[in-house]
Amino acid sequence: MKRIGILTSGGDAPGMNAAVRAVAGKAMAEGLEAYGINYGFAGLVAGDIHKIEAADLDGVIQRGGTLLYSARYPEFAHEEGQLKGIEQLKRFGIDALVVIGGDGSYHGALRLTEHGYNTIGLPGTIDNDIPYTDFTIGFDTAVNTNVQALDRIYDTAHSHDRTFVVEVMGRGAGDVALWSGVSIGATAIVVPEVDWSMEEIANKIKHNRANGHRSNLIVLAEGVMGAQEFVEKLSEYGDFDARGNTIAHMQRGGNPTAKDRVMASKMGAYAVELLLAGKGGLAVGIQNNQLVNHNMLDLFDSKHEVEVSLDKLNDEISFK
Amino acid sequence: MKRIGILTSGGDAPGMNAAVRAVAGKAMAEGLEAYGINYGFAGLVAGDIHKIEAADLDGVIQRGGTLLYSARYPEFAHEEGQLKGIEQLKRFGIDALVVIGGDGSYHGALRLTEHGYNTIGLPGTIDNDIPYTDFTIGFDTAVNTNVQALDRIYDTAHSHDRTFVVEVMGRGAGDVALWSGVSIGATAIVVPEVDWSMEEIANKIKHNRANGHRSNLIVLAEGVMGAQEFVEKLSEYGDFDARGNTIAHMQRGGNPTAKDRVMASKMGAYAVELLLAGKGGLAVGIQNNQLVNHNMLDLFDSKHEVEVSLDKLNDEISFK
Amino acid sequence: MKRIGILTSGGDAPGMNAAVRAVAGKAMAEGLEAYGINYGFAGLVAGDIHKIEAADLDGVIQRGGTLLYSARYPEFAHEEGQLKGIEQLKRFGIDALVVIGGDGSYHGALRLTEHGYNTIGLPGTIDNDIPYTDFTIGFDTAVNTNVQALDRIYDTAHSHDRTFVVEVMGRGAGDVALWSGVSIGATAIVVPEVDWSMEEIANKIKHNRANGHRSNLIVLAEGVMGAQEFVEKLSEYGDFDARGNTIAHMQRGGNPTAKDRVMASKMGAYAVELLLAGKGGLAVGIQNNQLVNHNMLDLFDSKHEVEVSLDKLNDEISFK
Amino acid sequence: MKRIGILTSGGDAPGMNAAVRAVAGKAMAEGLEAYGINYGFAGLVAGDIHKIEAADLDGVIQRGGTLLYSARYPEFAHEEGQLKGIEQLKRFGIDALVVIGGDGSYHGALRLTEHGYNTIGLPGTIDNDIPYTDFTIGFDTAVNTNVQALDRIYDTAHSHDRTFVVEVMGRGAGDVALWSGVSIGATAIVVPEVDWSMEEIANKIKHNRANGHRSNLIVLAEGVMGAQEFVEKLSEYGDFDARGNTIAHMQRGGNPTAKDRVMASKMGAYAVELLLAGKGGLAVGIQNNQLVNHNMLDLFDSKHEVEVSLDKLNDEISFK
Repeated sequence: MKRIGILTSGGDAPGMNAAVRAVAGKAMAEGLEAYGINYGFAGLVAGDIHKIEAADLDGVIQRGGTLLYSARYPEFAHEEGQLKGIEQLKRFGIDALVVIGGDGSYHGALRLTEHGYNTIGLPGTIDNDIPYTDFTIGFDTAVNTNVQALDRIYDTAHSHDRTFVVEVMGRGAGDVALWSGVSIGATAIVVPEVDWSMEEIANKIKHNRANGHRSNLIVLAEGVMGAQEFVEKLSEYGDFDARGNTIAHMQRGGNPTAKDRVMASKMGAYAVELLLAGKGGLAVGIQNNQLVNHNMLDLFDSKHEVEVSLDKLNDEISFK
Repeated sequence: MKRIGILTSGGDAPGMNAAVRAVAGKAMAEGLEAYGINYGFAGLVAGDIHKIEAADLDGVIQRGGTLLYSARYPEFAHEEGQLKGIEQLKRFGIDALVVIGGDGSYHGALRLTEHGYNTIGLPGTIDNDIPYTDFTIGFDTAVNTNVQALDRIYDTAHSHDRTFVVEVMGRGAGDVALWSGVSIGATAIVVPEVDWSMEEIANKIKHNRANGHRSNLIVLAEGVMGAQEFVEKLSEYGDFDARGNTIAHMQRGGNPTAKDRVMASKMGAYAVELLLAGKGGLAVGIQNNQLVNHNMLDLFDSKHEVEVSLDKLNDEISFK
Repeated sequence: MKRIGILTSGGDAPGMNAAVRAVAGKAMAEGLEAYGINYGFAGLVAGDIHKIEAADLDGVIQRGGTLLYSARYPEFAHEEGQLKGIEQLKRFGIDALVVIGGDGSYHGALRLTEHGYNTIGLPGTIDNDIPYTDFTIGFDTAVNTNVQALDRIYDTAHSHDRTFVVEVMGRGAGDVALWSGVSIGATAIVVPEVDWSMEEIANKIKHNRANGHRSNLIVLAEGVMGAQEFVEKLSEYGDFDARGNTIAHMQRGGNPTAKDRVMASKMGAYAVELLLAGKGGLAVGIQNNQLVNHNMLDLFDSKHEVEVSLDKLNDEISFK
Repeated sequence: MKRIGILTSGGDAPGMNAAVRAVAGKAMAEGLEAYGINYGFAGLVAGDIHKIEAADLDGVIQRGGTLLYSARYPEFAHEEGQLKGIEQLKRFGIDALVVIGGDGSYHGALRLTEHGYNTIGLPGTIDNDIPYTDFTIGFDTAVNTNVQALDRIYDTAHSHDRTFVVEVMGRGAGDVALWSGVSIGATAIVVPEVDWSMEEIANKIKHNRANGHRSNLIVLAEGVMGAQEFVEKLSEYGDFDARGNTIAHMQRGGNPTAKDRVMASKMGAYAVELLLAGKGGLAVGIQNNQLVNHNMLDLFDSKHEVEVSLDKLNDEISFK
């Protein structure tokens, strides 16, 4: 093995650059060359590929976004696209790949492995919705971005005795909402994985207001419904002077946190070790604080486990 | 004069606490007592009033929100409410007041002055929409909150070659959008004070994309329209993979910036000096870097001047 | 059991307030009363104790420092002090305690348990130097504070092709330095747990500068030596235009990160569960992502394990 | 005029990149070409010069440091160096220059003007120590970095009833200390421009501690003495459990604030306008919120005016 290709795929996530740097840095330390593929699988097929020099890695660990850009490219599901991609790998002499992205991008990675190009997947998404890993690259940063926003919103809620419904990202998963909600001591955290009732939430707010806690923050996972819709439905149960806020895409950017940088660095180096050991078709994760790998096929049948106990914890300690 | 009352009114703004601290601190330094009135004019009428002790001012300069709370209270426009308020002032022995809030609250302040209770107004709002002051307390913090959010959104726009329409606050005024937009080098800044055309903006984006600048941020003042509506109208002119984001209430909270803390401190001390000089019915401002005061009556007929040249500046230097 | 006492001891750490809130909130949810003891063991002995009301817990999860204050109080090592403390516990009807602090404070906690007052210890220190827990409350925040400072220093290092030696906290342990160093891609991380040579570090800098990487950051654990001393010794091996920086006490303050808030919340609730189960003399930790408890006695003989492999990881992927 | 050269000189300051972008962007908008000169006057002499393309200006307004690098180069004081620099200007066809840096760099700028190459100076330094401008590029960011650090240190000071002496930058000027000190409500601000007595400061701390304000922050300008030295001298007047902290170089980096970005943008565009009007040897500033220019010769005889009244203001409103 002489050349490792790296691409980022799906929505960008803070820490992707730290992962790219770790893969490339580790590859160079092992005497290999690293090649960057721009715009994910689209760029692979188009041959938008360049050698990564050591100097390109200066000052990137701290940057949000992805220096390799990203793009959706559903065409890679078809063999035609895959074969074109493989043409390009041959052309650039790339022997193996690391793909950083959501589990959607693992399908393409598995196809490349089947075609004889070992590919390792790293979990890069703020949504934390990938099976067989406790955390994904970008999740910690996104949660902290939300928490800083919620701290600010708390100031206004507290000054005005107002209820805020704050919608956060996570696609179908409630992780971002659960961590964000526990961190602000939310009146309620509403996620797809836990049953909830609007009436109960309304009663909680009423209880809080009756007991002098008139500022109430509700953290809402986007997988449930939109903030404005929630506010409207909530208002059927009383007048809470409620406002809907949607934190939106700022969750996806910004300098990554230390945890995301360290985890991405570990995972990136580990991916190169797996490739050097002749492995492919594996998804890297972190479970119980240890680096792990699982066959990508296993992931497709599995569902990410959400730490739903956080909802109960929040309810208990935020009891008022 | 022995006792000065302080209240905050209208939407909260970062730096209001710094202003409250400055008024109370300066009052104490002058041998006076300071009284806090909770929930603005509503609390004045209700008698929700307490003596401020020096210890209450520890660690408040850095806090967002308002420790005196705020509330809307349109009832204070009627003389009945005013007379009730004056009853309370008498009851607590308060001789004069400082009101921190938007220019809406200056009406109530002027009424109190006419009733013999000198009242000074400080401009506390993130919207920067008060006449006779270059800056309001909270504006600088809100703009910096936006700029940090825009920096994050830029990461995603750049990684995905995407167009973002980011709506910021400001009520009817474009100041927040103009400062935020110049700070991120926006493709366009859309404010109520400057003529604009959707077609031109679409052409700019097309031009940028044709020249390799495929990430485009448009900063939109809430006074114009909503982000989602803008995205829809924009999409009539082409497919820009555009997303709408609304930064919303987080702009109103958070630790104030140095500029807001220093300006609020100056204005707060100055308000006490004016009261000690027997003045009332005056609105404090900062113009050309100097503390100024104007008769509140003059403000009601005036319009805040927006630095519209920022839009042209941004266009020129963001030329691509 | 009706009343649980809570105190914070040793150096303050971000997340202590989240832990206090969780202990008190969980206690109230279980029908117990929570009592706050100010200034650690000193306040216990002095009887500086008050009932915590639900309203006291509003808006504290986001605050740095400790609302219960902290103080050193070596006198509590003597039985005289302990007996006085127990007098106070009796006086206030407190049945059991939670102590949040470094492992030094676990000695006092164990004494109280031996005297019949079950006490649970929570690891509250930025230094991460407590055995039987992967992370301490405050560590993640301190590391992120450092990383933000290092990002800033990188800007200047890069603009001026300069070497910076940045000293971070951690007392005898290298954890803070290791995580901070990996996060910035340091040229070298110098910690007490790993052998190192000044000559090698100087050679690395020379190698980097010869290869066009002229900005070099060295992250130094305070347990090794001071930044200025390091700079002087380094300069014996060449002229690196090196500057020493000491990040100092700002590492101990600030709003806690999401991770610290969530972990402190979990640990606080867990401590109450242990007390309700009639347990005492236990130190709570988190290992492999799971809440654990260990007999305090075991901690006194143990040494915290440092993840020294982070140093090797950093060397490899920062290869230039 | 067809080509404008740009260089940054002296210590880097946040906002320098925004200024470079504005100069280059405005130049391009006027149909000119912009050339970047790396490493200040050293790079000018060495011919380290390149054409700036529009794409180089993407995503730089938000970056700290200087993308044109900086270096000290005292040799430019000699005519030999100047003539070499002019050789390079001729070689690259550069007709006029903008120099961004401290007033030290204005000497070189004036020499170039005298040699027939019109040069405009922009005030780029965090120290705010340049005459004829109320603010320099980078000052607002540095102050806010300090204020965030002071907010953190306050948490620890407050939790431990401790005194902190925090040294901030500013070279010979007290501006950074004054703004930082007012922003945190310092017990004392110690700057070169205002007489002070250690005994008085000690008495203030004693007074505060006697009145229940046991956390005391003293903000110290580096132009006076070092933090450790100050702590030692202070301790001659009592035991204040005082610690010295030096914020150091992190003040010079980081994403610039909105104010610095907007001001740098205005100044950069204005510099090009002056060059287009055939002017040279002028220093751009902002006074009373208006862009101004002054002959560089006038600056050399002048002293920057410090807003010393901030010290008195702080004393008054921090009265305890």
